Amino acid sequence: MKIVRFISDSHRTLYGQYDPQRPAEARVIEGDLFGDFRVTSERVNIRQYLPPVTPVNILALGLNYRRHAEETRLDTPKYPILFMKASSSVIGHGEPILLPAAAPESVDYEAELAVVIGSKAKNLQPSEAMDCILGYTCANDVSARDWQLRRQQGQWVRAKSFDTFCPLGPWLVTKDEIPDPDRLRIRALLNERDILQDAATSEMIFKIPVVISFLSQSMTLLPGTVILTGTPEGVGFTRKPPLYLREGNRISVEIDQIGRLSNPVARERMPQR
Amino acid sequence: MKIVRFISDSHRTLYGQYDPQRPAEARVIEGDLFGDFRVTSERVNIRQYLPPVTPVNILALGLNYRRHAEETRLDTPKYPILFMKASSSVIGHGEPILLPAAAPESVDYEAELAVVIGSKAKNLQPSEAMDCILGYTCANDVSARDWQLRRQQGQWVRAKSFDTFCPLGPWLVTKDEIPDPDRLRIRALLNERDILQDAATSEMIFKIPVVISFLSQSMTLLPGTVILTGTPEGVGFTRKPPLYLREGNRISVEIDQIGRLSNPVARERMPQR
Repeated sequence: MKIVRFISDSHRTLYGQYDPQRPAEARVIEGDLFGDFRVTSERVNIRQYLPPVTPVNILALGLNYRRHAEETRLDTPKYPILFMKASSSVIGHGEPILLPAAAPESVDYEAELAVVIGSKAKNLQPSEAMDCILGYTCANDVSARDWQLRRQQGQWVRAKSFDTFCPLGPWLVTKDEIPDPDRLRIRALLNERDILQDAATSEMIFKIPVVISFLSQSMTLLPGTVILTGTPEGVGFTRKPPLYLREGNRISVEIDQIGRLSNPVARERMPQR
Repeated sequence: MKIVRFISDSHRTLYGQYDPQRPAEARVIEGDLFGDFRVTSERVNIRQYLPPVTPVNILALGLNYRRHAEETRLDTPKYPILFMKASSSVIGHGEPILLPAAAPESVDYEAELAVVIGSKAKNLQPSEAMDCILGYTCANDVSARDWQLRRQQGQWVRAKSFDTFCPLGPWLVTKDEIPDPDRLRIRALLNERDILQDAATSEMIFKIPVVISFLSQSMTLLPGTVILTGTPEGVGFTRKPPLYLREGNRISVEIDQIGRLSNPVARERMPQR
């Protein structure tokens, strides 16, 4: 099932079942996405997409595709490399990514498969790790490279946590629809035309069950935790010349069996003083 | 006002006003801590302390005291260094810090002053930054040094985000009671006896208004955001020989005008398979 979170024409914030055959609307879901819920017969128009979940924690992996690790000239990791993005950075499909006044020139895209945790999990073995998954969505791990590579003594959190730097969506696809998340084509597209990243999730160094097991050895994965599983090669800052997001661009993350998450790029407007 | 979050004898989770003269009880607070609330006349016993807030994001600063930066042999920062701790790592006063099975030998303490954000804030100047603060509490930025210094290519999040690695409390002190958070003595004590850290918040490189302004240039500070402002010198891993937390220890963070946050240390018990 595809589950969309959205604002309706009557300004309600709703969950709904999405049917690609009827893309303007959704069937309203009642209940708790992380408990019992049911799809009603009520159909309403989707006015604005929201991120499919409000994450309790956004856990993100660095360097989880070998050729991306190579393009950054960093060592290929022996363990999953964990960083976080602030929950305040999340936006939905169609909302603008804002080039921040504090870092307008080096904002980069990273197409990623996101895993949404559905049930509380701790100390899982890889063989049981898939049980706690609710579903999957597309993510863009937007990053201000000047803050990532400088001025933070190597810590990535500030660079990755600017407002609007975590587009998620357009919807969540429950795991029963994607029996093998290990074989999905994942792409980043500029202006719906130029292919910037094009890889398969099979190229991940640490596969999803290993990642979940590893993370659960250190922390309780709460329902609503979102795990970004790393980006493949082709990001902007390693290109010659570098390619950064500019006002007026549209950047999209497309994953097989999920869909296309697309966001325009604008400049942050500072308050007048 | 001192505001405690706690479980009562009748197993209710409550906010209450804490009076040091009557330490076993609290006067129940009704309403929203981040909106309108009022102190009732109902007095109930505190059965168990909870962290005074459930953080939406835990933002933490590295190397914000010069002599601590020096003891770690890392460069004194030119900008605040941001990392995050997972919200799942929070515990209250009196709850045990668990030495994780994945990192039992190198668990270290860090006494820190925590700032709790009360109202939404973005792009603040330092001169207006104090307005968004609700209050202050004590924090222990517990850290598994082997994961911090190795196997994560420099990212600190995993080392800092193990379950139980963010004791907060014992209560929140509203900002009106602490007009100058810049002049507080801050100490870490082992077994209520050995003084491990002893400094003043005046030694911070980046003072609270500068930190809040800096963070708000990148992200919206949501109500319930907790900012850990860095630790002074005297942490365990820089000692000769190193001093790490052991089962049976009690580790406390004491800050002037706030109180003493104290936690026993135990070992994580793994589930039987």
